[in-house]
Amino acid sequence: MARGALLSGFHAVEARLRSAPDSIEIVYVDGARRDGRMRELKARLAEAQVRSAAVPAERLRGLAGPGPHQGVVAVCRDGAPQGAPEPTLDDLIDALRPGSLLLLLDGVTDPRNLGACIRTAEAAGAQAVIVPRDRSAALSDVAARAAAGAAEAIPLIRVTNLARAMRELRDGGVRLAGAALGAERTLYDADLGDGPLGWVLGAEGSGLRRLTRENCDLLVSIPLAGTVESLNVAVAAGVCLFESLRRRRAGPA
Amino acid sequence: MARGALLSGFHAVEARLRSAPDSIEIVYVDGARRDGRMRELKARLAEAQVRSAAVPAERLRGLAGPGPHQGVVAVCRDGAPQGAPEPTLDDLIDALRPGSLLLLLDGVTDPRNLGACIRTAEAAGAQAVIVPRDRSAALSDVAARAAAGAAEAIPLIRVTNLARAMRELRDGGVRLAGAALGAERTLYDADLGDGPLGWVLGAEGSGLRRLTRENCDLLVSIPLAGTVESLNVAVAAGVCLFESLRRRRAGPA
Repeated sequence: MARGALLSGFHAVEARLRSAPDSIEIVYVDGARRDGRMRELKARLAEAQVRSAAVPAERLRGLAGPGPHQGVVAVCRDGAPQGAPEPTLDDLIDALRPGSLLLLLDGVTDPRNLGACIRTAEAAGAQAVIVPRDRSAALSDVAARAAAGAAEAIPLIRVTNLARAMRELRDGGVRLAGAALGAERTLYDADLGDGPLGWVLGAEGSGLRRLTRENCDLLVSIPLAGTVESLNVAVAAGVCLFESLRRRRAGPA
Repeated sequence: MARGALLSGFHAVEARLRSAPDSIEIVYVDGARRDGRMRELKARLAEAQVRSAAVPAERLRGLAGPGPHQGVVAVCRDGAPQGAPEPTLDDLIDALRPGSLLLLLDGVTDPRNLGACIRTAEAAGAQAVIVPRDRSAALSDVAARAAAGAAEAIPLIRVTNLARAMRELRDGGVRLAGAALGAERTLYDADLGDGPLGWVLGAEGSGLRRLTRENCDLLVSIPLAGTVESLNVAVAAGVCLFESLRRRRAGPA
């Protein structure tokens, strides 16, 4: 995540609530937990006028990453990320679930596009967005605004070497599907599997680099019906992510 | 295209080169760019017998104004490509085919979003984009650039009264599906029919106006799996249009 911080667990959230309640944007709580400790936390949140929202436990796991979250995750502004460092690729791999979706962006250098991709990935329930450190827009204010709050809710993992990160993800059980103009197989014919799936999208002009393509398990094209040669990268990400989400909801073919 | 006599960026120039090469007076290219994409463009220009000239990057910036030009700016005669006058709603209704897709935008006032919607609609093979005259961004240079050449290839029809236009489209046999947050029926459960289909999308903040909603045949939601409450409008348009395209390709359910 950008410059905010995610805190998980009662201790961390209660501590921040005491020390700097104003820095808390929202607290997500497990909607199924109705015990005394949760009731007490909710009372304190209400007292401090901090927003909270009940979400499914799965969603909290996605937010909190590995480790216990006890049914509570706080999204904080700025602030030193006390005890909640930006997750590493290893953290992410440890926290993968069968239905995990990831978005990998190779060379998205326009901050508005990066922000729109982050928003789209978060809306599709993806677990993280992964970008190469030196071939990506920064998560600037422009990007954060285009992300419409999503940059607070989904980790952006910057890796030094994207090809190596892709190999590690595959070793960790992630199927990597690259969206490539002109790929023979279309999005709708492709076998996307039902395990963890990472979508790999490239820069709008030049597409995926050779090494990035070679590290994908499969390449698919979005079949276009007009004359323009490509979609905006966030639109392409939306079409791919929501198609995989549709299939997962429909169950195995 | 708008009315501008200047087109910048590969997408826009290549689209004009395909649709109306004779309307291009000259293409200025960055003399320092010698990559594959530029070589390909030059080959196409030579093939179409369109004049080009290498100039310093500074000169291109002067021509293109702010915003990315990617080292290519075309000077075009007049505005609209010859033989492609802006159609009226009646023209559109007369030209509808069973598989026609349309995109109606109610209140998209950000020019980059309008441009991205036009690009997405064109890529999905939609027949037209329809906007209310007084509640839409203009097709400015910013919008045309975001449309990446698609504004040359798909008509943008401006109507005085969107609700009346919707009634006329329905009378003409178009099924209108409104994308609305929280609609009970999801995109994936909805009966989209197999005749002409118009997608109706609203402003990002306020969504569809009451009268716009009431003039839809059905309202559907895109099921989101994260915490953000909505998608960028062009991404939402992409998810809806490509889902309907997928079904049409798959044949009747």
